[in-house]
Amino acid sequence: MDAFAIPDLIIKKRNGQALTTGEIKYFIQEVVNGGIQQCQLGAMLMAIYLKGLTDEETVCLTREMINSGDVLGPWPEEWKGKVVDKHSTGGVGDKVSLILAPALAACGMKVPMVSGRGLGHTGGTLDKLESIPGFTVDVSKDDIKKIVEKVGCCIVGQTKNLVPADKEMYKVRDVTGTVDNFGLIAGSIISKKVAEQPKALVLDVKFGIGAVIQDKDQSRELARKMVTIGKGLGVKTSALLTDMNNPIGKKIGNALEVAESIDCLHGNGPRDLEDLVLKLGGQLMFLSGNAPSSEAGETKLKETLNNGSAAKKFEDMIIAQGADPEKAKVLCEKNADVWSVLPKAKFITPIKSQKTGYVNAIQSRDCAECSLKLGAGRQAFTDPINYAVGLEICVDIGCEINEGDPWIKVHHDCDVIPDAIKSKLMKSIDIQPTRPKNILATRVSEVI
Amino acid sequence: MDAFAIPDLIIKKRNGQALTTGEIKYFIQEVVNGGIQQCQLGAMLMAIYLKGLTDEETVCLTREMINSGDVLGPWPEEWKGKVVDKHSTGGVGDKVSLILAPALAACGMKVPMVSGRGLGHTGGTLDKLESIPGFTVDVSKDDIKKIVEKVGCCIVGQTKNLVPADKEMYKVRDVTGTVDNFGLIAGSIISKKVAEQPKALVLDVKFGIGAVIQDKDQSRELARKMVTIGKGLGVKTSALLTDMNNPIGKKIGNALEVAESIDCLHGNGPRDLEDLVLKLGGQLMFLSGNAPSSEAGETKLKETLNNGSAAKKFEDMIIAQGADPEKAKVLCEKNADVWSVLPKAKFITPIKSQKTGYVNAIQSRDCAECSLKLGAGRQAFTDPINYAVGLEICVDIGCEINEGDPWIKVHHDCDVIPDAIKSKLMKSIDIQPTRPKNILATRVSEVI
Repeated sequence: MDAFAIPDLIIKKRNGQALTTGEIKYFIQEVVNGGIQQCQLGAMLMAIYLKGLTDEETVCLTREMINSGDVLGPWPEEWKGKVVDKHSTGGVGDKVSLILAPALAACGMKVPMVSGRGLGHTGGTLDKLESIPGFTVDVSKDDIKKIVEKVGCCIVGQTKNLVPADKEMYKVRDVTGTVDNFGLIAGSIISKKVAEQPKALVLDVKFGIGAVIQDKDQSRELARKMVTIGKGLGVKTSALLTDMNNPIGKKIGNALEVAESIDCLHGNGPRDLEDLVLKLGGQLMFLSGNAPSSEAGETKLKETLNNGSAAKKFEDMIIAQGADPEKAKVLCEKNADVWSVLPKAKFITPIKSQKTGYVNAIQSRDCAECSLKLGAGRQAFTDPINYAVGLEICVDIGCEINEGDPWIKVHHDCDVIPDAIKSKLMKSIDIQPTRPKNILATRVSEVI
Repeated sequence: MDAFAIPDLIIKKRNGQALTTGEIKYFIQEVVNGGIQQCQLGAMLMAIYLKGLTDEETVCLTREMINSGDVLGPWPEEWKGKVVDKHSTGGVGDKVSLILAPALAACGMKVPMVSGRGLGHTGGTLDKLESIPGFTVDVSKDDIKKIVEKVGCCIVGQTKNLVPADKEMYKVRDVTGTVDNFGLIAGSIISKKVAEQPKALVLDVKFGIGAVIQDKDQSRELARKMVTIGKGLGVKTSALLTDMNNPIGKKIGNALEVAESIDCLHGNGPRDLEDLVLKLGGQLMFLSGNAPSSEAGETKLKETLNNGSAAKKFEDMIIAQGADPEKAKVLCEKNADVWSVLPKAKFITPIKSQKTGYVNAIQSRDCAECSLKLGAGRQAFTDPINYAVGLEICVDIGCEINEGDPWIKVHHDCDVIPDAIKSKLMKSIDIQPTRPKNILATRVSEVI
């Protein structure tokens, strides 16, 4: 391996040439063992940012990132063809994982889901689950296997030595203006998912105002790159391009989203949320060969929501991950009083409509930012989270609304909602004099 | 100044935007005080490399680099309009500084010359001077002033806190593939020269096979950039584009070049070397207002070579910089036995011509590489230098040569000249059947 020198590799990429497999392998090894200087890593990442990576390079980079550390598995022989996972690029009110993982487990699938925290305006699956008293996301590799063996699913934080090259590179990307490069983003996401060694992987790639990447064409480009890498690494992969203009479901905030997830697990969730869960899950059932079509997969999953088996899996999972069994039982019962278990905000204040007409849109990004400012998310990485606060939308897109009707309820712990939040929320609903024509039947716009 | 954040500045440059004066000032401050992370410096330098700097940015960057540390001066009032300096981009057999600085001093000019060491195949002025026993290049800022006050010139190494930002940036550029960027090269060169606070500055920008930048158009572009910066910082600046295909003068190697310089200081130097010294010096005399034209300046300088005053200044300078006065006197006498003072190689072996014809060219880069391999230069930065070894060319371009005639003498300390060096040298002379038509009357091709 000593035939390579880091400066030569930087120069090659700087000149727009593609790096070979051997060169990428050496680069990643040096990133992990500290043989590369930090200034060299910064320069290489900037060269990659500005000159790009070919699909071959991205696949290779991702493979070497995975090989840089531990992977989950090997999984038991009897799980063959059953291990699946989903990744979302991050949205507003996106509690899909909380419903999808147990529903898949109830269909006999195995879902060792490694998830993330909230970043920017988007909420994080781990943060949401941590609003359940006792729940821990800090689960060892061995325990992941045990939980998935027993329950069928888990939702955990990144294990210690999973894709260490990604951690090293991300630390540098974060401070060198090289975060928003599709090759690097795709490699980072897919490396962590493929390290779970799944049979199939589905990607929920958002576009629209509440998405990290708002432009649909750009989202499609990222989706294609991720699918290419996933397939290149031998995982059945597809991506759904999904609309993130209006919030997903009706609740935003950690405990609020857990509550809404439990409704959905009992078949009582908002239509758009359930549709998204079923579409993503249907893909996984089909891709992994556990359903003859994605529609057939959706039907199977829908049954688990209707017959209580998905909710039971959620209950088992949270108990396996530290929740008190008694409390978990109360929480997961149909029509349960979830607020006897989950943290509840001190105040609930409705915001009233200032117009009469039809609800045309609810601006998801503004809602997310308000929820964040109420304390539901982090502005700095070390900020504590207030699990109780958030927003509860009381209207549907397309429905009639009268001036003075409450359209959103703010769950807050501060005595008075700050004016900035109040006025932003008041502007985040769009009311038109006529009923909107194209109310989306589904958030899913394309399958890639 | 805290209104800026380094990642924002990197992103701005990454996107191809020009940085403001305030932003560049902040960036350089952070480079010097360590407020920037090394990975950020690497990323910024790569962004600069790939997106470029405008002339305004380069001038500003250079100014802030200078302001990052100490400068020489302020100079005494009576030196006003007299302080001048020259910089060369590096060549083969380039001993111009050793002659030019004393000759200018003999004309009453003040030359506080901060010079460099050999890098790559090119020789370094400091290395050459250090072949004189006792000579030191390590002179403090105060002593520079004293020596220039007394003698009129000195040739010293970079003082401790001169342009510290350049040192920090160069360390990173060296390992991140960002050395050969014209904005950064020009800024680095000019910052160190303008920190000497000269009235006028002349740049000897080489092109041709022995130059660091071989392409003439590229050399012109670098020359223009440097002149723009020099002028932008208030120094009368011009650049001479000079031909570096054949070696300058006839001697290559440290002590050998000192010997040839002393010949030249007595008016007995090779024609091409003397011409180059006079052309560069004439420009400085004219630019600084000490001669009505560059030609008039050349005439004044030529007198100092003919009347021994330049040689006397060289003698005074080397004594002031540590040489033994008795030995210095012997060394600097007209037709002196310089080898009684300078280190002499154990063996001198002539290489014979294998053809009969006319000398069309001598390949300077190959000669330089052979000299380097004999020990005259460094291959790694910590390598010791053999001051005695080198090459002595016995023929002139255009002259007749017969098969079997010695055309170059190798000064070596190893018993036998390694075959690789011998065969490279044998190929480095081009002999043609007819006399070449365009023998260069001067190396100077353009004045910018």
